[in-house]
Amino acid sequence: MPTGVWLIGALGDVATTTVLGARAVARGFAPPTGLVTAGDLLGGLDLVALGDLVFAGHDVRQAGALEGARGLAAAGVVPGALVDALAGDLEAYAARVRPGFAFGASRVVRELAEAPGEAPGGGPGGAEQAAFAAEATRRAGLAPADALAAIGDDLRAFRAAHGLERVVVVHVASTEPRPTLPPEAETEAGLRGLVARGDERVPASTLYALAALDAGCPYVNFTPSLGASPGGARAAAERLGVPHMGNDGKTGQTLLRTALAPMFRDRNLNVLSWSGFNVLGNRDGAVLDDPLANAAKTTGKDKVLGAILGPRLGTSLTRIDYVPSLGDWKTAWDLVHFEGFLGARMTLETTWRGADSALAAPLVLDLARLLDLAARRGRRGLQPGLAAFFKTPLGTDEQDLAAQMRLLAAWAAEAGPGT
Amino acid sequence: MPTGVWLIGALGDVATTTVLGARAVARGFAPPTGLVTAGDLLGGLDLVALGDLVFAGHDVRQAGALEGARGLAAAGVVPGALVDALAGDLEAYAARVRPGFAFGASRVVRELAEAPGEAPGGGPGGAEQAAFAAEATRRAGLAPADALAAIGDDLRAFRAAHGLERVVVVHVASTEPRPTLPPEAETEAGLRGLVARGDERVPASTLYALAALDAGCPYVNFTPSLGASPGGARAAAERLGVPHMGNDGKTGQTLLRTALAPMFRDRNLNVLSWSGFNVLGNRDGAVLDDPLANAAKTTGKDKVLGAILGPRLGTSLTRIDYVPSLGDWKTAWDLVHFEGFLGARMTLETTWRGADSALAAPLVLDLARLLDLAARRGRRGLQPGLAAFFKTPLGTDEQDLAAQMRLLAAWAAEAGPGT
Amino acid sequence: MPTGVWLIGALGDVATTTVLGARAVARGFAPPTGLVTAGDLLGGLDLVALGDLVFAGHDVRQAGALEGARGLAAAGVVPGALVDALAGDLEAYAARVRPGFAFGASRVVRELAEAPGEAPGGGPGGAEQAAFAAEATRRAGLAPADALAAIGDDLRAFRAAHGLERVVVVHVASTEPRPTLPPEAETEAGLRGLVARGDERVPASTLYALAALDAGCPYVNFTPSLGASPGGARAAAERLGVPHMGNDGKTGQTLLRTALAPMFRDRNLNVLSWSGFNVLGNRDGAVLDDPLANAAKTTGKDKVLGAILGPRLGTSLTRIDYVPSLGDWKTAWDLVHFEGFLGARMTLETTWRGADSALAAPLVLDLARLLDLAARRGRRGLQPGLAAFFKTPLGTDEQDLAAQMRLLAAWAAEAGPGT
Amino acid sequence: MPTGVWLIGALGDVATTTVLGARAVARGFAPPTGLVTAGDLLGGLDLVALGDLVFAGHDVRQAGALEGARGLAAAGVVPGALVDALAGDLEAYAARVRPGFAFGASRVVRELAEAPGEAPGGGPGGAEQAAFAAEATRRAGLAPADALAAIGDDLRAFRAAHGLERVVVVHVASTEPRPTLPPEAETEAGLRGLVARGDERVPASTLYALAALDAGCPYVNFTPSLGASPGGARAAAERLGVPHMGNDGKTGQTLLRTALAPMFRDRNLNVLSWSGFNVLGNRDGAVLDDPLANAAKTTGKDKVLGAILGPRLGTSLTRIDYVPSLGDWKTAWDLVHFEGFLGARMTLETTWRGADSALAAPLVLDLARLLDLAARRGRRGLQPGLAAFFKTPLGTDEQDLAAQMRLLAAWAAEAGPGT
Repeated sequence: MPTGVWLIGALGDVATTTVLGARAVARGFAPPTGLVTAGDLLGGLDLVALGDLVFAGHDVRQAGALEGARGLAAAGVVPGALVDALAGDLEAYAARVRPGFAFGASRVVRELAEAPGEAPGGGPGGAEQAAFAAEATRRAGLAPADALAAIGDDLRAFRAAHGLERVVVVHVASTEPRPTLPPEAETEAGLRGLVARGDERVPASTLYALAALDAGCPYVNFTPSLGASPGGARAAAERLGVPHMGNDGKTGQTLLRTALAPMFRDRNLNVLSWSGFNVLGNRDGAVLDDPLANAAKTTGKDKVLGAILGPRLGTSLTRIDYVPSLGDWKTAWDLVHFEGFLGARMTLETTWRGADSALAAPLVLDLARLLDLAARRGRRGLQPGLAAFFKTPLGTDEQDLAAQMRLLAAWAAEAGPGT
Repeated sequence: MPTGVWLIGALGDVATTTVLGARAVARGFAPPTGLVTAGDLLGGLDLVALGDLVFAGHDVRQAGALEGARGLAAAGVVPGALVDALAGDLEAYAARVRPGFAFGASRVVRELAEAPGEAPGGGPGGAEQAAFAAEATRRAGLAPADALAAIGDDLRAFRAAHGLERVVVVHVASTEPRPTLPPEAETEAGLRGLVARGDERVPASTLYALAALDAGCPYVNFTPSLGASPGGARAAAERLGVPHMGNDGKTGQTLLRTALAPMFRDRNLNVLSWSGFNVLGNRDGAVLDDPLANAAKTTGKDKVLGAILGPRLGTSLTRIDYVPSLGDWKTAWDLVHFEGFLGARMTLETTWRGADSALAAPLVLDLARLLDLAARRGRRGLQPGLAAFFKTPLGTDEQDLAAQMRLLAAWAAEAGPGT
Repeated sequence: MPTGVWLIGALGDVATTTVLGARAVARGFAPPTGLVTAGDLLGGLDLVALGDLVFAGHDVRQAGALEGARGLAAAGVVPGALVDALAGDLEAYAARVRPGFAFGASRVVRELAEAPGEAPGGGPGGAEQAAFAAEATRRAGLAPADALAAIGDDLRAFRAAHGLERVVVVHVASTEPRPTLPPEAETEAGLRGLVARGDERVPASTLYALAALDAGCPYVNFTPSLGASPGGARAAAERLGVPHMGNDGKTGQTLLRTALAPMFRDRNLNVLSWSGFNVLGNRDGAVLDDPLANAAKTTGKDKVLGAILGPRLGTSLTRIDYVPSLGDWKTAWDLVHFEGFLGARMTLETTWRGADSALAAPLVLDLARLLDLAARRGRRGLQPGLAAFFKTPLGTDEQDLAAQMRLLAAWAAEAGPGT
Repeated sequence: MPTGVWLIGALGDVATTTVLGARAVARGFAPPTGLVTAGDLLGGLDLVALGDLVFAGHDVRQAGALEGARGLAAAGVVPGALVDALAGDLEAYAARVRPGFAFGASRVVRELAEAPGEAPGGGPGGAEQAAFAAEATRRAGLAPADALAAIGDDLRAFRAAHGLERVVVVHVASTEPRPTLPPEAETEAGLRGLVARGDERVPASTLYALAALDAGCPYVNFTPSLGASPGGARAAAERLGVPHMGNDGKTGQTLLRTALAPMFRDRNLNVLSWSGFNVLGNRDGAVLDDPLANAAKTTGKDKVLGAILGPRLGTSLTRIDYVPSLGDWKTAWDLVHFEGFLGARMTLETTWRGADSALAAPLVLDLARLLDLAARRGRRGLQPGLAAFFKTPLGTDEQDLAAQMRLLAAWAAEAGPGT
């Protein structure tokens, strides 16, 4: 029986690559490289087949998934031949995308939301395009409580229309500036009260999370946005018995850091300073040109080093800069200045050059499959066993990648093999 | 009660840094940075105090440890003030160094062995210098079986002279070209027969290992030379009840690789090629300018990747080149070309710039302390629990650094805390 | 009036990119980025238009230019859409390619020459394919003197068939192991005598050069092979009044070094060591896996540093390794260890990641146009004013890129603007 | 006859290294590596001998030059043995340092100015220390016009006390936040009026410049601070017939960029983006943690690329971050993303690791000697022939290092050889 995957930020590069890739692997056009769920550790689990996933989602932009995929192909992120072969699948997907919400978004995202945009299904679909635009305009005027209801309606309609046993919601939209929520957000009643009163500090990501939980949909926050982090949302997940996990997919520089930092700890070496610089040019990069969104992102990146190295860490520094020419090809340079025996001062430099979307997409598929399994197994609330997938895993302080892989193995052992 | 540490290659940079550092930490002049035995994992073991270690060893060169230490200070590897403060300790150490053997050594080492050299104790000791030179000349003419006996005599004399409970032998001499031993070397009787017959294929490193085991001395091979690797030597260690371990200290590029490669495996990414280039300028580098010694070294370095990545690894390549100006500052550049989701091709570059001796010396101290403990606890034969310290650990195929740290934790738990 | 460009190594990646690019720029599908002749310095010269160039050449392989171009597109070196748009041009070009000679070639090239190969025009052209194969077989049995005549016949036939005013020959075939020619090769009569006697030491590249000069064709050696370097070939060029230049196109690491090394000289800094490592995976890389061809290549690369830095250079080292996964994407890491004021030791690292063929092809077009102009202006013999294009420029010791650009400006001023 | 060198920022790392190095070379303890005036191009000029230079200066801090030099030795920037050998020279120098001014300085510098500080001559000189402190306190209360007079008095007193023919003033103090001067600063009368009225926008660097010019002292601005940049100061230099030059010594990343960028221009390649990140940990780095000072610095760094590449440059980005552990060892990573033939996208990365003070000090000596010569030859006003030494050379737009070296050769030819 098919499972739905509902992507918040449905027409962004990560979502597009996710859908394209799931279809490519399902149809046998590409091997499942990069999927942890296709690797040795999790290969034996009773996971939903990629071919049984149905995709849809929300986006603030009206754009074509096919056009997005063509842009990714031109940038060398995905093969152009795959895009051609799966054009129909991408168009069908885009037609299932519903207008999203931009409460608390950065300036760049709000501008996207206000622009007219192109047709979601591309091509001739003038009527569809007009309907999307009209609904987007109507939704732009909704109060938070009504937005919450609209999101829930979308999820339930999707489930019903496709006869889905379950819908997993994955947040892959651009990073929001981090809001300061009042203390009452730490209880479910308090948080719901803020939404009811239209408090502007509750961001769209948290509305999406609440709506997913209310609809019984497992939820994954793949971004540093707030999502289900407030205590009130976590309490709702517990009460409603819905599994969820976040925050912020660990795809590049931070993945590397959590593999490397334990080496310094294990060898009793002092890291005097760890300085890292990221440059990227895709839409996420443009959003991070907004200092508030940037701060939300770099804070998480810096924390992992302290968690692993403790007092062995001197200073750390992380910067993200927007360099348009790089597109999706995020390049990160790290300089680790460390001290060894008798005070000898040494350095390690790393330069990571990865396609952001190609790194993120397989993890999105992994998490959708694992949360689907969690729900089937009756798991509720946070799933810290999945910490290996996140930059700031909720429910655990473990940041060491190898230790997180052991947590994952334990989680999988408990979830059990298929029958 | 003090423990002896007998260093083969006693006047090389690694040995000099080891002795200088042990004295510096023992006297409170420096913290034990870089010592795994001073870290969290092994901190609770009942290890011999650094101040209770007495050092001596063999070297084919007649040289001053103090002069060597001054050279390391000039190169920025160790602090000059420490060398000044510990000059007396270094001179006393050098006076305990005995002439070594060069069977099967590379051309560079054989030339060192034949050169007259400076006084081991430096300074005025003309008589000592002459005695060392005379003995070196005499030893140069010995047959392997007589060399074996002479080494054993040196070890026993050292133990007696200093009232040592135990002497751990650590091989830190320059890499030997890898010989091809005949099949009979795989049994103890066969190996001893080869020595008795003066077979030239048994290298000095294996004579040292046999002599150590015969004298009941725990033995560590910190180099890629043969040492106790032949089956005949391993059998002797089992029969005699002596613990030993090797080969080749994991200090720089390989350490980094064994921390990084599991990340690609865990994320189900394919490493299309992993190319690495080392440049260094110390005596080890000069020795590795000999193609046979170089091959012995790079073979081990290449193997770790295959062991961790299996079929996920395409090709690998490791080169070591001698660049005199770099001295002890070994610099290694690795280029990892990897493939992710939908065939996206990405790269990771690392540049490691470390002081070779400062990386090796604390591990030599760690291993001396751990083998001393092993002997006290009655352990015999290979100690694969110590795999984390070696590039090609004997007795285990485990190369993943994090997994090796778990083996080490288990080893330590079995060895138990102090009482 | 059109000019011919005859490419030795006509179906290799450099030649394919050259032809594809010339047609793309001529048809307005791409700007002339990377062409020095389209830049500010040479923009005013009376050069042949790219659209007036007609391409043909020799190759030892029977292969399709279109298939080669598709491979380059798959590797991200050239845009796939360009290859589709120019498929007809590429097929017409491949049909003009004639079987080449492999005297003195490396093992890899000789194996290519002996393999059956695919059709030059691709697709259905079975008759053409068979004719090429038959002629290749016949040519494989020719003596050097007959090969020389056959090459000249090919050049004259091409000139006649297309009504070309002039044909410029550019050698872009894989590097030959460097032969040791006897002293008589330094005079024209001596060199011709060696050819007449079938001396095996005269490589194919020198036969091509002689044949070009005999046919009055300006000649460029874009490789480190011998070509027109022997004194006898240079004398022939002078006597026959034909302009020529070489050796070895300066495309990547060496280009960078000749831009950087003058900085150290101008600031009176000492370069203690300059170590460079290249990895690449195209056919040139495979050929360079042959140690003799490799030595021919790296020798030239090392010399430029000494020429610029003189006694300020300590040691230098250059390696080229074949790493198949990288394809045409040559990656070069250089480590410059230098000494400044009061002996301070500092480093510069560079990592260059370039598409080899995309760097070479525009220079091939530049040189074809410039040699065509030289011939029109009646210039004879070596053209050291074009040193900026070569790793080991003949006729000058100037290696400083900026100084070479001034030589080029002077050459251009003398050649005069168009009228 | 001796020449004075008056250093603004006299107890900073650059000044300390300058004085130490001049004495070391003069006494034959070190070769003149890194001095352009000791290289081939300028070797024949009639320059003042390093041994004939007498040093003094201003500083806002009361600190010991010897202590500073010891810190630099501990960080591996200068040899400790040199500091020991020249301790007396350093103490004599420190005793000639006078309290400076901090108008318009960054917060960090103002805090230094207000802190009590250590003795300038170190050690026992309690009386001297007290006198410096008292004078510093008195000067802190002076109006700009009185400060101007006090600086001039210091310069004249130094000249008289040491019988100096000439005093060259070199500004090497920490970067000031860039002020916005009113339009009247563009005339000499207007600028002097601002000083007379105590206008707070005229920074200390400009007061120093004016005082130097008024006293007939050639002036060099080795920093990005305003100095003699305002039109009013330049006019004063012309009127008074005093030579001067600036701004901002070209020591590391920018030096490299001006050597590399012409390569892209000469090969007609498009630089899509040039991103550069600097990390350093010395006092200059701490000052640059102030965003305003940082902006003053990075603006100059970014401009050079546009000047060389023109429309071939897409975007550029330069960041400087303070990483304390690195001390004087400034590390700069640049990522150049460029486009070649048929749109191929390639990259060049550079990592520069240099000791900031060791790179700057020889240029300070070069400029002092060249400005001394300029004054002797009767040159007045700006000296754009010295552009090669500066990041933002006044009086010329030339940024190409090789072209600047040709300007320097022309300047030297005009200045003529010694007689």
